Amino acid sequence: MHNGKARAFTNIALIKYWGKKDQQLILPMNNSLSLTLDAFYTETSVSFSKKYTADSFYLDGQLQDEKSTEKVRRFLDLVREQSQFFEYAIVQSQNFVPTAAGLASSASGLAALAGACNDALGLNLSDKELSRLARKGSGSACRSIYGGFVEWEKGDSDQNSYALPVPSNHWEDELAMIFILINDKAKDISSRNGMQRTVATSTYYTDWVKNVDIDIKKAREAITTHDFQALGEVTESNCLKMHATTLAASPPFTYWTPNSLKAMNKVHTMRQAGQDCYFTMDAGPNVKVLCQKKDSQKIYHELQKEFPAEQLVMAYAGKGMETLETEVAK
Amino acid sequence: MHNGKARAFTNIALIKYWGKKDQQLILPMNNSLSLTLDAFYTETSVSFSKKYTADSFYLDGQLQDEKSTEKVRRFLDLVREQSQFFEYAIVQSQNFVPTAAGLASSASGLAALAGACNDALGLNLSDKELSRLARKGSGSACRSIYGGFVEWEKGDSDQNSYALPVPSNHWEDELAMIFILINDKAKDISSRNGMQRTVATSTYYTDWVKNVDIDIKKAREAITTHDFQALGEVTESNCLKMHATTLAASPPFTYWTPNSLKAMNKVHTMRQAGQDCYFTMDAGPNVKVLCQKKDSQKIYHELQKEFPAEQLVMAYAGKGMETLETEVAK
Repeated sequence: MHNGKARAFTNIALIKYWGKKDQQLILPMNNSLSLTLDAFYTETSVSFSKKYTADSFYLDGQLQDEKSTEKVRRFLDLVREQSQFFEYAIVQSQNFVPTAAGLASSASGLAALAGACNDALGLNLSDKELSRLARKGSGSACRSIYGGFVEWEKGDSDQNSYALPVPSNHWEDELAMIFILINDKAKDISSRNGMQRTVATSTYYTDWVKNVDIDIKKAREAITTHDFQALGEVTESNCLKMHATTLAASPPFTYWTPNSLKAMNKVHTMRQAGQDCYFTMDAGPNVKVLCQKKDSQKIYHELQKEFPAEQLVMAYAGKGMETLETEVAK
Repeated sequence: MHNGKARAFTNIALIKYWGKKDQQLILPMNNSLSLTLDAFYTETSVSFSKKYTADSFYLDGQLQDEKSTEKVRRFLDLVREQSQFFEYAIVQSQNFVPTAAGLASSASGLAALAGACNDALGLNLSDKELSRLARKGSGSACRSIYGGFVEWEKGDSDQNSYALPVPSNHWEDELAMIFILINDKAKDISSRNGMQRTVATSTYYTDWVKNVDIDIKKAREAITTHDFQALGEVTESNCLKMHATTLAASPPFTYWTPNSLKAMNKVHTMRQAGQDCYFTMDAGPNVKVLCQKKDSQKIYHELQKEFPAEQLVMAYAGKGMETLETEVAK
């Protein structure tokens, strides 16, 4: 019996990962840059044993069916292949999300699983190696290995595609993100399928890839100089360019719903009124508002005028955000 | 005293005019293709007289101030220059729009003014020459010289930038467009300013221009073969690509409001339920639903489930849509 345990936090990309150049290895078309947050995290324990005759996966205490276990099992196969340790496993994950709004993230989930396997099998992977491993479970999971600002270097092979922390002199301690959970029924297009259709058909996709490095550079400069406005502007602009690529796909699609647009407009209105806040969105209808911790309560209360409290979740970026190993050690 | 009169109908682009390469002459960056509609039109009379000491402009019976008269006066200057007939004029325009929702269109307005001047001064301009003249008043006005399907050939000089009818064997008689008037407060960015910012700063704009000819070709083929689905698909896709360019502008902007998105979603839902309908949007929040006349009542009633009747306007494309001269002769 080999047991391991890990906790990993979710991360939100400020400069988006959008499109794969290798579906199998999960190599992205462009670098991405994220902020790790404390509000949503996953704790996972894994035990490998020769007594088990199959892999099983419990999520929040519930045994998952064949289909929901598929991603976990594929990941365990990768681990067995890499470690040459061929036993089945029981995986138990707990998603710590403030509501049942479906914000469970495959980023924190697969990062925690990678950490738990590393722990269980005594693989002693470095953060970089752990990031590579998590990447193969779910692309953005490779960024959840670290706290703070993180950049996923796209690389061009399994070996050199991994995330690294972006030095920020702990600026993340001053930042917050408010999640606006949008209840509108959204288009049922997974992030994976949305990316694939966009890469294959969107006439704007080439330009997206061509320009994303400029945005990465702007974001890194803003992080170095602690320039919140510059970081916010490039975050919002990069998000809009990502979502614009889906409108030029064939057939076109969008992750936006009427209430997403209401939330984006609210952020603009607040900004015009002098509040320092910017939005970002991923492959779904929720809107995330980037702001500084010092303004976060005021902005939260302003958002409450438009959205009920149960749709708002405050997340901070710096508190207790250490590397996965540290979390495991706790 | 030289009097003239004309009526012109509004047109809605299926393949959009989006961006100028010459601000002065109003030469567009790309060809566009439109459908002329009967629901909104402008009737304009003009009288030139040496007794007048200035130009004046009445809209719906109200004398307009300096600022609102500016566009009309600049156009009259063009006409005086072209005709070498140097008298001031009184212009009286009536906009026939079914609500006060601000749908008065500069396309029908400037086309009617061009027609009225042609009539008043006996210029005997051909449709093509009239289209060139109207273009210099307001770009899309050059398409309102004709009924049915119309293509604006972008050209590369004042001489060869004008609209021509697209032969359709009267297919437009079978088509309709339902306007969904959206009351949300929209961004205050004029079509003119939106274009300028997009051309100057949007990283997707080059691709927009590069691909629009493919859409024009698809639309022309659909018109030739009376293939409604093909026309609808290229209309919707082209509209989304146009609006996507604004998201990649700097700073980014959008003409969409929450209710625009609600209307677009409704069109998608109806289409999934088997209704043949497609949307398009211009530089504002209203959504226009392209459908066939045979389905138009059913689609109108379906839309009424989501939008009050006073926000819905049915427009047909073929009834009484003759050239401007014919309208003048009526």
